[in-house]
Amino acid sequence: MSLILYDLAGAQPDRRFSPYCWRVRMALAHKGLQADVIPWRYSDKDLIAPSGQAKVPVLVHNDKWIFDSWAIANYLEEQFPTHPSLFTSAEGRALSYLYSTLGEYLSAQIVRFVLLDIYHHLADQDKEYFRISREQRFGMTLEDVVKHREAQLPSFRESLFPLSAVLKKQAFFGGDSPLYADYALFGHFQWARCISDFELLESDDPIAHWRTKMLNAFDGLALKAPGY
Amino acid sequence: MSLILYDLAGAQPDRRFSPYCWRVRMALAHKGLQADVIPWRYSDKDLIAPSGQAKVPVLVHNDKWIFDSWAIANYLEEQFPTHPSLFTSAEGRALSYLYSTLGEYLSAQIVRFVLLDIYHHLADQDKEYFRISREQRFGMTLEDVVKHREAQLPSFRESLFPLSAVLKKQAFFGGDSPLYADYALFGHFQWARCISDFELLESDDPIAHWRTKMLNAFDGLALKAPGY
Repeated sequence: MSLILYDLAGAQPDRRFSPYCWRVRMALAHKGLQADVIPWRYSDKDLIAPSGQAKVPVLVHNDKWIFDSWAIANYLEEQFPTHPSLFTSAEGRALSYLYSTLGEYLSAQIVRFVLLDIYHHLADQDKEYFRISREQRFGMTLEDVVKHREAQLPSFRESLFPLSAVLKKQAFFGGDSPLYADYALFGHFQWARCISDFELLESDDPIAHWRTKMLNAFDGLALKAPGY
Repeated sequence: MSLILYDLAGAQPDRRFSPYCWRVRMALAHKGLQADVIPWRYSDKDLIAPSGQAKVPVLVHNDKWIFDSWAIANYLEEQFPTHPSLFTSAEGRALSYLYSTLGEYLSAQIVRFVLLDIYHHLADQDKEYFRISREQRFGMTLEDVVKHREAQLPSFRESLFPLSAVLKKQAFFGGDSPLYADYALFGHFQWARCISDFELLESDDPIAHWRTKMLNAFDGLALKAPGY
């Protein structure tokens, strides 16, 4: 069996900073699957062209190309039903999907803190594409997006109270041990950690404690990745 | 067996407008349980004093008093394990808790649209308490809280995209049929519907379609309640 994952990388090949790729890496580890994880840059569109689109994560399983983190998680679950489950049941799968879409919301918040740090870590060939596409999306320069990040931090932290409230009562969103729901959210915090020294969370926030547990999971898979 | 639920009511006894009580009423229906649902006003603190606190929902099961919607859902699940499950499994229960805490976030948003409408529906004996406590909480008059609600509507609707995204792909948050996760969120939309004619959702929003299904569930339990 062959499993290949294309994983967004910066100038340093081991600087991995896609929240959605991190979801998949944690999901693969959860299922006890080894993949060849290949560093990929925005300019490497050709490498993943067989997937029919231009974004990572892209998983190649034997001859099959799968993209989109949620689709990949579902694919892994279907293909490897005897491995530890990411969802535990059909209902668990349905309940987990909101965690995936909430992750997008998290990213939309976190990017306002780390956007410029991402730029500084990119490979040279990716920098122009990144600046132009992001400045168009935000309608301002990368520098302006993050200019008031210190002032925006308290309201961001406050907006996380639904997550904090859960983690005050439970070790993981999945209960006593992590499930895909945890990976779907953790990917976004790990993205920030890999690319920026800006501290999103207060050290006594239950989310910070959970993040530490997630960093240490699977023999420190996420902790060992270059980050801050 | 005796089951009693104290349920927040307005001047009209059948005007029920607590999001957390609606969660419990839907959960009871899901489990096929009948309770005596007793209208309760803010000034009726004595009625629920045996619960040890002063907020509804309060459920009385035989001689046991239980408060807090999440605690009540868990209690029902434990006491009536052979009835249809609200969570389907321990993991489903863990995954559902975020829906409960997200509901609080929803309420904090929705209240900025309906606060004054709540006031207008209250029993006379509740009005002074409500105005004073809420104006203290918001640091402004009830009238000022909702003054810019039309202008705030687009950003509120946009903030719901994680919910819309799920409901584009699934009939319910629980999958093919509703679970407690659905009731936890629906309670807040039903609260708004029962108390205000202000339309929170666009008619083609997937959340609006889901809300219609929830209104029709259990023989129209929520639809039959006086509302807008």
